[in-house]
Amino acid sequence: MKNVNIRALARELKLSLSTVSKALRDSYEISAATKERVRALAAEWNYIPNAYASSLRGRKSKNIAVVLPEVADSFFSIAINGIEAAVKPKGYHVIIYLTHESYDGEAAILKDFQSGRVDGVLLSVSRETTRTDHVQELMDKEVPVVFFDRVLETLAAPKVVTDDAESAYKATTHLLSQGCREIAYLGISEDLYICRQRMEGYRQALRDHQLPVQPRNILTCAADATRNFQLVKKLLQRANRPDGIVASVEKLTTTVYQVCQQLQLHMPGDVKLVCFSNLEIATILQPSLTTITQPAFEMGKTAAEMLVKILEKKVLTEKDIRVVIPSELVVRGSSGVK
Amino acid sequence: MKNVNIRALARELKLSLSTVSKALRDSYEISAATKERVRALAAEWNYIPNAYASSLRGRKSKNIAVVLPEVADSFFSIAINGIEAAVKPKGYHVIIYLTHESYDGEAAILKDFQSGRVDGVLLSVSRETTRTDHVQELMDKEVPVVFFDRVLETLAAPKVVTDDAESAYKATTHLLSQGCREIAYLGISEDLYICRQRMEGYRQALRDHQLPVQPRNILTCAADATRNFQLVKKLLQRANRPDGIVASVEKLTTTVYQVCQQLQLHMPGDVKLVCFSNLEIATILQPSLTTITQPAFEMGKTAAEMLVKILEKKVLTEKDIRVVIPSELVVRGSSGVK
Repeated sequence: MKNVNIRALARELKLSLSTVSKALRDSYEISAATKERVRALAAEWNYIPNAYASSLRGRKSKNIAVVLPEVADSFFSIAINGIEAAVKPKGYHVIIYLTHESYDGEAAILKDFQSGRVDGVLLSVSRETTRTDHVQELMDKEVPVVFFDRVLETLAAPKVVTDDAESAYKATTHLLSQGCREIAYLGISEDLYICRQRMEGYRQALRDHQLPVQPRNILTCAADATRNFQLVKKLLQRANRPDGIVASVEKLTTTVYQVCQQLQLHMPGDVKLVCFSNLEIATILQPSLTTITQPAFEMGKTAAEMLVKILEKKVLTEKDIRVVIPSELVVRGSSGVK
Repeated sequence: MKNVNIRALARELKLSLSTVSKALRDSYEISAATKERVRALAAEWNYIPNAYASSLRGRKSKNIAVVLPEVADSFFSIAINGIEAAVKPKGYHVIIYLTHESYDGEAAILKDFQSGRVDGVLLSVSRETTRTDHVQELMDKEVPVVFFDRVLETLAAPKVVTDDAESAYKATTHLLSQGCREIAYLGISEDLYICRQRMEGYRQALRDHQLPVQPRNILTCAADATRNFQLVKKLLQRANRPDGIVASVEKLTTTVYQVCQQLQLHMPGDVKLVCFSNLEIATILQPSLTTITQPAFEMGKTAAEMLVKILEKKVLTEKDIRVVIPSELVVRGSSGVK
């Protein structure tokens, strides 16, 4: 039953194409009895309404949705450029949807795509997202999904990620080599796969250097900048103050610098900092910021190329593909090197 | 002929609703002769297909498009938050389209909206946009457009702007009061209305202080950061080096700080800087950055509220409305005040 289409349904049911189409769309113009007949056969033949809608129109929407938690983070704004670089030559339009780190928002957006509004989806999940059913449901409707950066590890969909664990390991090891012995880790989620990976890299580096992993040194920050400021301030006011910080997200940069200013702590003398960040401005901070720079453009581009490939083949052959593009440790002033 | 709808056309032509609908959509199921009859009457009655499409579906898309030049600028990422705050309680979804400062991109996006894909549009035009016909055409299809920030001044559509001329005047006057006498102005476009306004504010401030407006002090920067760096470097290497700079866009901040670092110029001693910026990071720069802070959230929110009002009334009664929300000069270290 591979080539079920609207025409086959209409022929079998001895109905017009238009009637079958309307019945499937639950149109008020069609009687309940007819709708029931159409739906029963569609279900029996495992017919997928979305594919129908597209083929009836005779064209795809040529729209690719990019679903992101936010755009204030430079990782995402650069990744968008990579995505557009990959899909524009192929004639696709990029449409951006923001979840604002809300699972409900994300689920509602994906639900909306089931009607065939977009041809495919590039997804980086919200901080709250632990369930996978909203994505699985969309994939079941044959709308291809490619994950990038923030992935749902257990889903059988292509993924483009960076080496989060290795990068955090590298950042922590770098701080250790600069003499730090009490290193704090600032995270934003205990659920997100990439956050767990980063934290694991940090822990592993400490263990490999025979240092204890101290719960007091692991902070989970939130969306609220004022609360983050208080958390980090409390951390840096402690008697056994951390002498190094690995900040796992870009926006915590401002927080750490502000707290150091207020407490009159000197970077890198009193505390050294490495931040996961793609901020262009890292170079002009004083001290300049040591970063884990993610390959944002390449990640967006690679994920988009993969999606286009799937769309052009019209089959999901690559769902087990996982591409890892390494991040780079860029050492600058905040970790004690000029 | 105010209440022309699909039913009226069908009644007059003695055709079914479905036939008229298909004829208007140029369906292959309808004969050329019938299409001609339908189109002729639709034209005579000045019937607008889009309104039809929506009403036939019995619902609006509930999607609001936000068309922006980019998201890397914090003004736009904050404005998006304001927009979502206004429309979410009303059940609308926000979809973001980026023009990447291209007129062609903008025109293609707006063209796509003519089919009724979105209920209304919030628009901030690209740097290249001088023509208005692509927007007028969309408005002619009764898709309401509300401008914010970067407006097309001559179009009869609602606009939400900030006091660009006054802000640049204020920035320049502030630098004059700090002792600057050779003040440079960094712009990004000679076409964009808001850029012309800002430049005019700068010029007026100089004139009001009996200072000449020197063409050598007015630079038009581009998208290319390397080229901007060279331009600003050349400016600050001049024999009669500017002692003050008004930078009209956020991303020039990094450029000016980088050039000063490389030329070992001291801010605010050697040169003072005011930048149009909403960067949270302004406070942690050294020196901290004096900014013209735009009411990004409020501008987005106000524009979106206006659009929702229009959508709910289903008439464009407010097309002459122009809301001005003032920006704020926030004095910090880069202009010589601690």
